[in-house]
Amino acid sequence: MAKIIDGKAIAKEIHGEIANEVRSLSEKYGKVPGLAVVIVGMRKDSQSYVRMKRKACAEVGIKSLDLDLPEDVSEAEVIATVHELNANPDVHGSSPSLYSPLDLASLAKHINEENVLSEISIEKDVDGFHPLNIGKLAMKGREPLFMPCTPKGCLELLSRSGISTKGKRAVVVGRSNIVGLPVALLLQKADATVTIVHSRTPDPEKIICEADIVIAAAGQAMMIKGDWLKPGAVVIDVGTNSVDDPSRKTGYRLVGDVDFEEASKVAGWLTPVPGGVGPMTVAMLLKNTLDGAKRKIIQ
Amino acid sequence: MAKIIDGKAIAKEIHGEIANEVRSLSEKYGKVPGLAVVIVGMRKDSQSYVRMKRKACAEVGIKSLDLDLPEDVSEAEVIATVHELNANPDVHGSSPSLYSPLDLASLAKHINEENVLSEISIEKDVDGFHPLNIGKLAMKGREPLFMPCTPKGCLELLSRSGISTKGKRAVVVGRSNIVGLPVALLLQKADATVTIVHSRTPDPEKIICEADIVIAAAGQAMMIKGDWLKPGAVVIDVGTNSVDDPSRKTGYRLVGDVDFEEASKVAGWLTPVPGGVGPMTVAMLLKNTLDGAKRKIIQ
Repeated sequence: MAKIIDGKAIAKEIHGEIANEVRSLSEKYGKVPGLAVVIVGMRKDSQSYVRMKRKACAEVGIKSLDLDLPEDVSEAEVIATVHELNANPDVHGSSPSLYSPLDLASLAKHINEENVLSEISIEKDVDGFHPLNIGKLAMKGREPLFMPCTPKGCLELLSRSGISTKGKRAVVVGRSNIVGLPVALLLQKADATVTIVHSRTPDPEKIICEADIVIAAAGQAMMIKGDWLKPGAVVIDVGTNSVDDPSRKTGYRLVGDVDFEEASKVAGWLTPVPGGVGPMTVAMLLKNTLDGAKRKIIQ
Repeated sequence: MAKIIDGKAIAKEIHGEIANEVRSLSEKYGKVPGLAVVIVGMRKDSQSYVRMKRKACAEVGIKSLDLDLPEDVSEAEVIATVHELNANPDVHGSSPSLYSPLDLASLAKHINEENVLSEISIEKDVDGFHPLNIGKLAMKGREPLFMPCTPKGCLELLSRSGISTKGKRAVVVGRSNIVGLPVALLLQKADATVTIVHSRTPDPEKIICEADIVIAAAGQAMMIKGDWLKPGAVVIDVGTNSVDDPSRKTGYRLVGDVDFEEASKVAGWLTPVPGGVGPMTVAMLLKNTLDGAKRKIIQ
C-alpha cells in the first residue's frame, strides 16, 4: 500500500514556520508582510479560494489587503488597481483571482488575463505567473523572483517526504501555464528527466508507466488508473474535479486526476484529494509573500 | 538509408525569400532592415560566426551595423552600446556575440551575459534569448516576439521536409538555454510529446530509442550511436564538435553529436554536420531581423 503524503499536515507545518518568521520580522523591523488578495466578481469556486487565502494570511500574521471588484469592472480599472498595489509599500505581493484555480476558465470574459498579469510588478508577482518569471524558471543559471505556487508546492511535498528528483524519470500529465508547464520546468531544474504528456499524446499510459514520479495535472477525473503506474512510483495528484455523488448531501464529491483506490495499491507514495496538493498552494503563496517582504524589509 | 536533410540548400532557399521581401520593403517604404552585429574580442570561432552573419546580411540586402569591441571592454561599455542600438531607429535587431555558438563558453569572463542580454530591447532581441521571450515561448497562448534562431531553424528543417511534429514522441538531448531548452519548448508548442535528456539522465539511450524525432544538442562528439535510434526516426544534429583528424591539412574535422555513418543506416531522416542545422541559425537570424523590421516599417 502506498504511503500517503499528507499535504494538510505539511502545509500546517509550513504555516507554523512562516508565522515564526513573520513574528520575528515584526519584532526586529516593526513591519509585517502584506498580500493584496483581489477578486473580480462573485463566482463561487474563486470566492472559496480567495477566502482560503485571506484566512491563511490571518493565521500566519500576514496582512491581507482585500479588494473585491465588481464582475463588470473594466480591464483598465483592474490594471489601475494593479498599478496602485505596485506603488503601495505595504503590499509585498499581489494575487488577483481573475480565474479559478479549479478550472482555469477565465472568470470575467471581458478581461484579458495576460494584459493584467503582465502589469503586476515583477517584485510583487507572488503567483509567479509573469512571463519574465516563467522565462527565468525555464533557463539554466537564472532564478525567478517567485515560483508558481502549486508547482512549488508539489516539489515541497517531495522534498519534505525525503524523495529526491535527481536522475529520476518524471512525467507531468497536462501542460497548463499554471501547473503542468512550470512544474515540468521545476523538475527539470531539479535534475529529473521530464516528459510532459498532454491531450495530443497517443497512449499516455505507455509513458506514464515509465515514471518514477508522476505529476497529474490534466483536470480529468480519475483518468490515471492503477495499471498505468510503475510499482513504487511517487504520485502527486494536482487534479480537483467534482463528480456526481448522490450518496452525499451536496450531491457531489471531489476527486483527483488519479484513481486513488487503484493507485494506492501500486504506487509507493500518493497524495490524496482533497488534502494533498491543495493546501500547499496557499502555503506557497504565503511563503512567496514572506520572501518578497524579506527582500524589501531586510536590506 | 536515411534521407539527408540538406540544411545548406534549405537555408539558401530562405535567403532567397528574405532577399525578395527586403527588396519589396525597400521599394515600397524606402527602408531596409538593419542588424547590429556586435563582437567582443577576437576569438577565432566567434569571429567566424560573426563573419557569416555579416556576409549573409550583405547577401539578402539587410544592412549590418558592424561593431567590434575590444576584448577588455567593460560590461558597462557593452551595455551602453546596447542602449545606443536600442535607440537607433535604423537597427531592427541586436545580435551581440558574447560567447561562441560553438561551445557556449563565455568569451569575455568579466562580462555577465545575463546583464547584457536583459538590456537588449525586447523588440530588437533577434537572438530570442531574453527571458521574457523565453517565458512567452514556454507559455500556452503567448507568443514571443522572436524565437531563438537555432531551435527555430530545427523546426523549419522539419516543416520544409514535410515532417509533422503533432502527436510525435520527441527527445531533446541537452538542456542548454541556447538550444536544448527552447527547442523542447517549441516542439511542445507544436504538439509533440517532449522529453529532455541531459547529463544527469541515467541510460539516455533507453529514452532516445523511443523517439520519432531526436534533436541532438549535447555538444558530445558522436555520442548518439546507430543502435540508440528507433528505425525510421528523424534525427536533427545540432552538435558541432571538432575532433582530431591527422589525415586533414587542418588536423581536425567537424562532427556532430550523432555518429553519422551508423545513424544513416537506421534513421529515416538525418541532418549532416556541417551543412545541416548550422546554416539555418544564420537564416533564422536574418528572418527574425526581417520580421522585426516589418513590425516597425509597415504600420
